[in-house]
Amino acid sequence: MEISQLGEFGLIDRLAKDITTKNASTICGIGDDCAVLSPTEGMRTVVTTDLLMEGVHFDLTYVPLRHLGYKAIMVNLSDVFAMNAQPRQVTVSLAISSKFQVEDIEELYAGMRLACEKWGVDIIGGDTTASLTGLAISITAIGEARSEDLVLRSGAKPTDLICVSGNLGAAYMGLQLLEREKVIYNEQVEEARRSGSKEQMEALRSTQPDFSGREYILERQLKPEARGDIIETLRKAGIHPTSMMDISDGLSSELMHICRQSQTGCRIYEERLPLDYQTAAMAEELNLNVSTCALNGGEDYELLFTVPLSLNDTVSAIEDVHVIGYITEQDKGLALITRDGGEHQLKAQGWNPLKES
Amino acid sequence: MEISQLGEFGLIDRLAKDITTKNASTICGIGDDCAVLSPTEGMRTVVTTDLLMEGVHFDLTYVPLRHLGYKAIMVNLSDVFAMNAQPRQVTVSLAISSKFQVEDIEELYAGMRLACEKWGVDIIGGDTTASLTGLAISITAIGEARSEDLVLRSGAKPTDLICVSGNLGAAYMGLQLLEREKVIYNEQVEEARRSGSKEQMEALRSTQPDFSGREYILERQLKPEARGDIIETLRKAGIHPTSMMDISDGLSSELMHICRQSQTGCRIYEERLPLDYQTAAMAEELNLNVSTCALNGGEDYELLFTVPLSLNDTVSAIEDVHVIGYITEQDKGLALITRDGGEHQLKAQGWNPLKES
Repeated sequence: MEISQLGEFGLIDRLAKDITTKNASTICGIGDDCAVLSPTEGMRTVVTTDLLMEGVHFDLTYVPLRHLGYKAIMVNLSDVFAMNAQPRQVTVSLAISSKFQVEDIEELYAGMRLACEKWGVDIIGGDTTASLTGLAISITAIGEARSEDLVLRSGAKPTDLICVSGNLGAAYMGLQLLEREKVIYNEQVEEARRSGSKEQMEALRSTQPDFSGREYILERQLKPEARGDIIETLRKAGIHPTSMMDISDGLSSELMHICRQSQTGCRIYEERLPLDYQTAAMAEELNLNVSTCALNGGEDYELLFTVPLSLNDTVSAIEDVHVIGYITEQDKGLALITRDGGEHQLKAQGWNPLKES
Repeated sequence: MEISQLGEFGLIDRLAKDITTKNASTICGIGDDCAVLSPTEGMRTVVTTDLLMEGVHFDLTYVPLRHLGYKAIMVNLSDVFAMNAQPRQVTVSLAISSKFQVEDIEELYAGMRLACEKWGVDIIGGDTTASLTGLAISITAIGEARSEDLVLRSGAKPTDLICVSGNLGAAYMGLQLLEREKVIYNEQVEEARRSGSKEQMEALRSTQPDFSGREYILERQLKPEARGDIIETLRKAGIHPTSMMDISDGLSSELMHICRQSQTGCRIYEERLPLDYQTAAMAEELNLNVSTCALNGGEDYELLFTVPLSLNDTVSAIEDVHVIGYITEQDKGLALITRDGGEHQLKAQGWNPLKES
C-alpha cells in the first residue's frame, strides 16, 4: 500500500496499534504533544540519540528492513548499557521517501519492536515525516540508574585492567563480505544486461550468494546485540567498572576517548585481542590484517571497560570477558604491544563519517 | 573550513566549546555515551522529538541557517509548553552533506543556542554525522511539570471555551511570499543567463526583494516563538486549561486531534479567527481566502486550548488570547460558523508531508 493513501496520521495510527507500553515509568506514550514519564525517585535519567542515514549508515540493497529496525534500536540501548544503566524508553523518528510502501515501514517497526521487547523498553513517540531521497532514522533512548551505579568514560586510573566483552572485528568482516557480494552481483547483472540474456537475468534474480560458514560475521553486522547481559553479570559479580563505553567506532578510537577523558595512557596486547574464527578466516581471504580489523573495525557494540587491578581474578573468571591490557600514566601514551614485542602508538582509524578517508 | 578537515570529533569539540549547561537537573552534557539528568523529585518528565529534512521542511535558498537552528529548537519547545511543562534539555542530531562548511554548522548552532538561552534550556548531546544529500536535523526536547499541572489533548468537555493565543495564518503567508520571490528570482536568473548579460547577473546577485511592510509575516515564518509566555500568564491567572496543544499543522487539524481525543465536537466562528493586518493584506494580494489560511496554514506555533465556560471573563481579559468558539457533544461534529451564519464541517487540510496533495 502506498504511504500517501494513509498520510502521516493514518500511518502513525497503523504503526501505533501494535505498540503497548509496559514500564511503570511510562505514563503516556504516543498521541500527545509529548510523551509523559514518571522517573523513579532518586534515580538518574540517561539520554542518548543516534541519526542513521540511508547510503551512509546502511545499504538497503543487502540490509533487510526488519534487521535495520532491530539494529537502530540496539545501537542506542548499547549506549545506555555503557553507562551501566537500564534502558526504559525510546522515541523513533523516520523520514521516508516515496520509494517505500506501508508494508516496508511495518517491517522496519517489527524489528524495532523485537529489539525493544528483548530489553523491556517502551516506544513512547517520535515523528513520522517525508524525505526527498532515502530513509532517515533518528532514535533517542532514555534509561535510568542509581547515581552511584553510573559509569562514565572519565574514571580510569593507572594500573586498572582494560577489558572487552565478546570479540572484535566480526561486524566489520561481515560488512566487507556483503560489500564484496554486492559488487559481484552488480557485475553479473551488468553482464547479463549487455548479453541481453533473459534466462541469465532470471537466474540471477533467484540466486543468493553462498554464505555458509560465514553466518556469524553476517549476524554480527546485520543483527548486533547490546550487551545488557554483561552489565548484569558484572553487577552479580560485584564489579563496578571505573570507566566504560561501547565499541561502535572501533576499539582504538574508543580507547582514545577513555584515555583522553580519564587523562591516562594505556597498553594493550595484540595477542589478547579476542577474535572469532570466522573473523580471522575472512580477513585472511580478503588479505587484511585481522588485528587491524579488530582495532579499527567498528560496529562491534561490545563493552570496553576498566576495573581495578585487584579484581583481576574475578574479572578473568567471567565468561566472554577478556583482559586485553592496562591503563598507564598519561605521559606513557597509548600503545599496542605486538606479538613480536614491538610497541606501536595507537591511532584512531575507526569509522568517522565526516572525515576524508 | 571544510568539515572533513575536522572530522566528527573535531567538529563536535568545536561546537561543544560554546555550550555550557545551566539547569541543576543537567548533571553531564556532551561527552559520554549518554547525557545524565537528575529529574526533580515528584515531577513528571515530558519528551518530544522532531525530524526536519532539507527540501521537505526547509528551503535553504531563503532560510538563513541561524534562523533554521532557532526554529528547529523552538518548534520542540512549543510541544513542551503545549503540555503545560517547562523545557529543560534538548539533544541535537545533524546529518550534514558535503556542501556545508564548518562555518555553516556554527551558524546553525548559534541559532540553536539563542533559542535555548531564551528559555533556559541546556543542549546535552546529540549525534553529528554525514548525509549523502542535504541536511537532516533531529531534535529531542525534555521538560518537566508537576503531575497535576500537565495538560493533555484529551480533557476537553462540552461547553468548554476554545481559545488560541496570538494570531493565525501569518507564518503560512510568509512562506507564500518567500516562495513567490524565489520563483521570480529564478526566472530573472534564467533570463540573464539566456541573454548572456554579465551586468544583469551581477545586479541580480546584489538585489534583495523589497519586503517592507511584510516584516511581520516573514518573521513568523522564519523565526517563530514558542509561547512559554502564555503558559506563564495562564498560571498567574490561575487558569488550568482542560486540554491544550500547539498549532503546527493548522488550526483545523489540531482541533480534530483535540475533539477526537476528548470525544467531543466543536463550533468555531470565522469572525473570531485572530488575524494580523499583514496576513490579510498578503492573502488579498495572492487572491487567497484569509480564513482558509488561518484554519489550515500551519507553523503558527500558537497555543490552542480549552477552558471551562465559567472562566470566560478571566480568559477574555488576557491580552493576546482569543476565544474562538466552544466544545460540543461529539454527535454535533466539528463545525465552522461563517460570517454569514452558515455552518461548514471542518476539514483537516493542514500540512501532511506523507499525504498526496
